[in-house]
Amino acid sequence: MSPRQPIEYRDAPPEVRAVFDDIKRTRQIKDVNNFWRYLAHDPPTLKRTWDSIKEVMAPGALDSLTKEMIYLAVSVTNGCGYCIASHNAAARKAGMSDAMFGELMAVVGMANETNRLANGYRVPIDLAFEK
Amino acid sequence: MSPRQPIEYRDAPPEVRAVFDDIKRTRQIKDVNNFWRYLAHDPPTLKRTWDSIKEVMAPGALDSLTKEMIYLAVSVTNGCGYCIASHNAAARKAGMSDAMFGELMAVVGMANETNRLANGYRVPIDLAFEK
Amino acid sequence: MSPRQPIEYRDAPPEVRAVFDDIKRTRQIKDVNNFWRYLAHDPPTLKRTWDSIKEVMAPGALDSLTKEMIYLAVSVTNGCGYCIASHNAAARKAGMSDAMFGELMAVVGMANETNRLANGYRVPIDLAFEK
Amino acid sequence: MSPRQPIEYRDAPPEVRAVFDDIKRTRQIKDVNNFWRYLAHDPPTLKRTWDSIKEVMAPGALDSLTKEMIYLAVSVTNGCGYCIASHNAAARKAGMSDAMFGELMAVVGMANETNRLANGYRVPIDLAFEK
Amino acid sequence: MSPRQPIEYRDAPPEVRAVFDDIKRTRQIKDVNNFWRYLAHDPPTLKRTWDSIKEVMAPGALDSLTKEMIYLAVSVTNGCGYCIASHNAAARKAGMSDAMFGELMAVVGMANETNRLANGYRVPIDLAFEK
Amino acid sequence: MSPRQPIEYRDAPPEVRAVFDDIKRTRQIKDVNNFWRYLAHDPPTLKRTWDSIKEVMAPGALDSLTKEMIYLAVSVTNGCGYCIASHNAAARKAGMSDAMFGELMAVVGMANETNRLANGYRVPIDLAFEK
Repeated sequence: MSPRQPIEYRDAPPEVRAVFDDIKRTRQIKDVNNFWRYLAHDPPTLKRTWDSIKEVMAPGALDSLTKEMIYLAVSVTNGCGYCIASHNAAARKAGMSDAMFGELMAVVGMANETNRLANGYRVPIDLAFEK
Repeated sequence: MSPRQPIEYRDAPPEVRAVFDDIKRTRQIKDVNNFWRYLAHDPPTLKRTWDSIKEVMAPGALDSLTKEMIYLAVSVTNGCGYCIASHNAAARKAGMSDAMFGELMAVVGMANETNRLANGYRVPIDLAFEK
Repeated sequence: MSPRQPIEYRDAPPEVRAVFDDIKRTRQIKDVNNFWRYLAHDPPTLKRTWDSIKEVMAPGALDSLTKEMIYLAVSVTNGCGYCIASHNAAARKAGMSDAMFGELMAVVGMANETNRLANGYRVPIDLAFEK
Repeated sequence: MSPRQPIEYRDAPPEVRAVFDDIKRTRQIKDVNNFWRYLAHDPPTLKRTWDSIKEVMAPGALDSLTKEMIYLAVSVTNGCGYCIASHNAAARKAGMSDAMFGELMAVVGMANETNRLANGYRVPIDLAFEK
Repeated sequence: MSPRQPIEYRDAPPEVRAVFDDIKRTRQIKDVNNFWRYLAHDPPTLKRTWDSIKEVMAPGALDSLTKEMIYLAVSVTNGCGYCIASHNAAARKAGMSDAMFGELMAVVGMANETNRLANGYRVPIDLAFEK
Repeated sequence: MSPRQPIEYRDAPPEVRAVFDDIKRTRQIKDVNNFWRYLAHDPPTLKRTWDSIKEVMAPGALDSLTKEMIYLAVSVTNGCGYCIASHNAAARKAGMSDAMFGELMAVVGMANETNRLANGYRVPIDLAFEK
């Protein structure tokens, strides 16, 4: 089997179905998205990645919306097309408004700019930041 | 003058002093940090960058703490040492607890991992994300 | 001529044909892929890049399969769509199985995650690594 | 407690000690390196990251040396100083010779170069790579 | 309104039209390109970004062509598809010939290669560079 | 021999000395910098990299100063500390003034910002750029 086609539920082995079922139950969705259907080519990676995402993205000291926006900020910085589309959708679902998206993008843009200004001017770390 | 030394207030021309004064007033701090003292080698970039940061980081649809955490997430992804140190300090000042930092780092780590899984498996964007 | 179209063998000047011929002979393929047909817009870059690739990718202390998997790992980290597709194909041809691809992706994913954890926690290098 | 100091075994809570013990047992080393002592500030991330690394880095379809070299290739591409130092040490321990390191670096360098040539020339993916 | 569609002049509020008019006047073009029509979803970011670009890209110590080629070099390094296409067009308009583009790409490729060789060999900075 | 120490001329084998001599002659300098002394651990990579750099950085359609500034722009974007230091020195030697450095950094900063705005807003490429 080539990893170039997604694995559908009906064709999936039991350990893949178990993960798909848990994703659908946890997120209360009818079907899993392409990311999981491609990872299903490697069942241990599918299970480990889902277990980690489920633990990491559960609300804790940070709420789900903040976590989704951080995920989107990283994906935009890395230029991952799939991840930008999927985490934009997830952040919207968690409550990100157009105004919040606009401000998120403004911060991400400025951070990417000033990261390079700090690199290029070779700015040494202030002692105050080390205390 | 070599750009290898920071510009101190006492040696700065009026247009640089005006920016330094506005940073100190806006942030209620006694002195500006190294980033601004190095940018001061190029006064138009100093002024433009500060004006942009002041506008972008002001609380709006997102509060200051969320904005600082997004800034930190980008800086960690890019591996900018200075920016990680300074925005960690800024996020702490804005209220980031140890628990929040821990969850922020966990999300940043997972996003950087799954960004590459999506790249490598060449996952096509789900139609549902385009509606 | 705009660099937006590939250069075909029949239209290529002698120094480009010489490189195309060497690629086909070395790799035992009938035609060169798009990468070389685009680089052909700049014959010195075409020749220099092919000479380097030929030297670097020849089996030595590392075999061809290991080299192709390292190439793929870098391309996935950088998110280069063309390079992921072409080096996935090259690694498959050199013997990469589905199971090997799955483990390669798992390592690439974890490395991208822990690189950011090390950045964000600002972990100092252990003395033991410097000996 | 500030996340700026590593957590030592003697000061660690039981769930951290359990992970440290497992790392030492699995890798047959006397003490864990700084990466784990910093992650220990966030015990769930420590445990999850170690469990994932242990699973991902175990020999399978790829041997330990190949996995460590892929880890190093990613770390060099991302410019993560700590990760380059620690995975260089790990790869050496797993059997990487000077000659293998030299060839690994040559491949990583060329991949980073040709990734940008493919980007800049906007090379379309060959149909042959999609079959 | 979803940020998935560009904002057309006829539908734009006055503050967006004012920026569009200034872009058209400054660049002497009939219509603004997609980048600005998407940023128009967030008028303050549209205005701030345009004001910055207008200031930064104006000829000064560096001429317009050099600035556009630097912009393209960064976009190629980051792998931003839109930015590569738009700044290639802008650099051509400013006078970049096929030969100049070829040499630009050769430099960008080599820089991305040697950046990783310097990382991987962990080369310490020469004292001579610090004077 | 560990790759952790630079190779000095007096300890170098003939093929390394030949490259060192050519670098010194071409650049009219008394001694080669650390980059070459570390690459000397792998003589074929040393020779290939120097031959490529010598060809790529020679003045052609672009002059030496423009090439050095493009090299610096890439190094700043990638955050390579050694490369920023060494190519800043090289660009200064080739004639980069403080004002030119300031404008270069301003362009690099804006390009890194707008690259992410284009990613995040998922801006489609204008048809006009494809003609």
